[in-house]
Amino acid sequence: MSILTPFALPPISPLVVGVSGGADSLALLALLRETGQALIVAHFNHQLRPEADADEAHVRAVAEKLGMLFTNDSADVAAYAAGQRLSPEEAARKLRYTFLFRVARERGAAAVAVAHTADDQAETVLMHFLRGAGLSGLKGMLGQTLLTEFDDRIPLIRPILHLTRSETEAVCHAKGLDFRLDASNADTTYFRNRLRHELIPLLETYNPQVRAALVRTANSLQGDFELLNNLLDETWQACVKATGVGYIAFDYQNLLRQPEAMRRNLLRRAAFSLRPGLRDVDFGALVRSTALKDGDFTGGLALLREGDTLYLAAYEADLPRGNFPLVIMELDIARGEWHELPNGWRLLCEPVAFADYRPEDEWTAWLDAESVIGRLAVRPARAGDYFCPLGMNGKSVKLSDLFVNLKIPRRMRGTWPVVTLDDEIAWVVGLRRAEVAAVQPGTKRILRIRLIHTGG
Amino acid sequence: MSILTPFALPPISPLVVGVSGGADSLALLALLRETGQALIVAHFNHQLRPEADADEAHVRAVAEKLGMLFTNDSADVAAYAAGQRLSPEEAARKLRYTFLFRVARERGAAAVAVAHTADDQAETVLMHFLRGAGLSGLKGMLGQTLLTEFDDRIPLIRPILHLTRSETEAVCHAKGLDFRLDASNADTTYFRNRLRHELIPLLETYNPQVRAALVRTANSLQGDFELLNNLLDETWQACVKATGVGYIAFDYQNLLRQPEAMRRNLLRRAAFSLRPGLRDVDFGALVRSTALKDGDFTGGLALLREGDTLYLAAYEADLPRGNFPLVIMELDIARGEWHELPNGWRLLCEPVAFADYRPEDEWTAWLDAESVIGRLAVRPARAGDYFCPLGMNGKSVKLSDLFVNLKIPRRMRGTWPVVTLDDEIAWVVGLRRAEVAAVQPGTKRILRIRLIHTGG
Repeated sequence: MSILTPFALPPISPLVVGVSGGADSLALLALLRETGQALIVAHFNHQLRPEADADEAHVRAVAEKLGMLFTNDSADVAAYAAGQRLSPEEAARKLRYTFLFRVARERGAAAVAVAHTADDQAETVLMHFLRGAGLSGLKGMLGQTLLTEFDDRIPLIRPILHLTRSETEAVCHAKGLDFRLDASNADTTYFRNRLRHELIPLLETYNPQVRAALVRTANSLQGDFELLNNLLDETWQACVKATGVGYIAFDYQNLLRQPEAMRRNLLRRAAFSLRPGLRDVDFGALVRSTALKDGDFTGGLALLREGDTLYLAAYEADLPRGNFPLVIMELDIARGEWHELPNGWRLLCEPVAFADYRPEDEWTAWLDAESVIGRLAVRPARAGDYFCPLGMNGKSVKLSDLFVNLKIPRRMRGTWPVVTLDDEIAWVVGLRRAEVAAVQPGTKRILRIRLIHTGG
Repeated sequence: MSILTPFALPPISPLVVGVSGGADSLALLALLRETGQALIVAHFNHQLRPEADADEAHVRAVAEKLGMLFTNDSADVAAYAAGQRLSPEEAARKLRYTFLFRVARERGAAAVAVAHTADDQAETVLMHFLRGAGLSGLKGMLGQTLLTEFDDRIPLIRPILHLTRSETEAVCHAKGLDFRLDASNADTTYFRNRLRHELIPLLETYNPQVRAALVRTANSLQGDFELLNNLLDETWQACVKATGVGYIAFDYQNLLRQPEAMRRNLLRRAAFSLRPGLRDVDFGALVRSTALKDGDFTGGLALLREGDTLYLAAYEADLPRGNFPLVIMELDIARGEWHELPNGWRLLCEPVAFADYRPEDEWTAWLDAESVIGRLAVRPARAGDYFCPLGMNGKSVKLSDLFVNLKIPRRMRGTWPVVTLDDEIAWVVGLRRAEVAAVQPGTKRILRIRLIHTGG
């Protein structure tokens, strides 16, 4: 019996080996040791069972006997689970991997090795099957993977994923290593135990080789998953315009051209990328979302289409606004004085000479100074705002229609600055001047309002 | 409740509907009828159960009541199964679909519709899972497919694959249609019955929604399967050089460049294309075969590499020989007389004038007539043959080495023609002249041996 080496390990960097003290992890240790690789034995004490301390002592003793580095940590998993509202197995997994990858970073390790076996693989595939998983779940555990929630560089490897549990016991016997009985790690929950002791034996009455069959399924699907992933990589490049904190911006038209199943895969990948801790993406949500319509997705994410961009975004995400100005509250405009606005903008209203008069530009408005008698202010646009656009013969239009026509994202409309004269809209900043205080043939004095962006 | 229309049915062509008399198929009939589509009710009597004739009478009566065309056939499935060494369910399936597609061809039908439900889908997925299937099995039944073993043009459709069995019963009640109880079709075998009545209820104690979960898995995998299939189509185009009766010729180098999982998929597709009746391709055989080495594959197929060509071929296949000559047995060569060889070739040995002497070409050999005293013959090359190639100063070489160097396929070596003079090789036809009876400066009379190809 030998280990699978999923990649060439750099001989100088050590491997961190997670060792519980059971047959699986001791066999892993013994087989890895034969490769000459530098190893660090790492034990995490979950404090979940009475024999936990004895397990720890056993692993320490084995490491000593084999002349290996030993490191350990412990935590009150039950208390942590209660505090974090996690299931005990989720809490145990989180704390254990956090420990293993912390050790790996501290020691400059090439990888973290864990002792999942073919039996674990069969159980994992079965568990995913029972919950109606797709390809990414049914493919089971990989021989090498990244758990980005714990470390985005150091891989996790599973060198004995091809060995059965009874083969690991045989290895321990052959190497003269005592293993702890029932030293199953803490994610051996009631559910998994029922699978192992009740369901799999029953399935064996249908197919005596069912464990091997499930491992075969995993191996077959892993290959197909990889092919599909390569295809997905290419399509992702073509369909994703930008990624930011809490959001991914797709090219809507390109996404629309993809087959439905590809859209599902792209959205699933986007969800995992935005929520690295996510263990699953609801298939129903994926199917609904292939219509690419605005609305809730799953996992605290939502779809939002703006023109040719489709965002998949966390509820809390700050989507890109470009460098558009915004205002949160009303502000009186004084003459000749710079007003600071949020988002790095400043506003200045000042009288200017006729010689400086230019056609309107995006961030400048010209007003007939003699018409500006009342209160000049800048405030956020409001639902229900109307205004009379310059050059439309006094016709009144809804501000919201202007926003829609100019494709201003909905989320930016509530903070869009408008300049008002006695509460009547004189300028929709950046978009359109109103009739109010228009410069006309008889205008004698001019007021200029400018916004400038000073960055940051 | 309504049907899924997987594709736009031409309104004029009828649908052949397979109706057993159970709730599923009667619900299918009722729902299809509402679409206004022309229907032909087709019942196949498997003669497997005592109530088979009553089932037939019931379906006939329903068709009459609904004013629909009815057609039926029957066979002694048990006897056929015994004769063909098939399981009863395989025999039933084969006879039933043969009947349905025969009717479809006779009536110019657009498709054959069958009444598989979501419950059947869950059971199918589970059955494939238990045997360790890959993606193509786990994806379950498609809403539309071709069963090329029965017809390579008329599709099979499953318009109620989204309805549960109990929903089909509700449809029958709502439409006032009596259905035959336990009128399960003949592939409801003991194994499937155990799944339905024992295993699925047990799985529901792990996940109460397990049926829906398995249908979800099928739907998810069908999408991924389709994506992968598109990718496979492209790669197939690039990797397959030729297809013939019983064989597929791959471009070896191109195949070698593909990821292992893609090689598996290409070989699986090739196997199904060569053996349309195959229900499964052994995963172990696929994994072994990705090495692309000569040897047995599975299903009576073998891999054979010849230069840059890799054949996947049926044992019985006649692989392309190009237009090379072959001989099966020894034949004395008479002067001035045409000898017929297999494969459309003829041989002629005749004295020619010196003026006609030309350098050797592939299919012509020149001999010094005065040296040709003994017995001139043509025979197949033999293992262990040696000869002295012309111009190599009498050095003797193995004929098999010549074959290897010139990349003559192994399967053609045993019938390759050699011309002998008193049992010594004078000419390896098409490849190399020997020293024997060489034309030399002092040669007075010339014998010319020619082979010509007159077409297959």
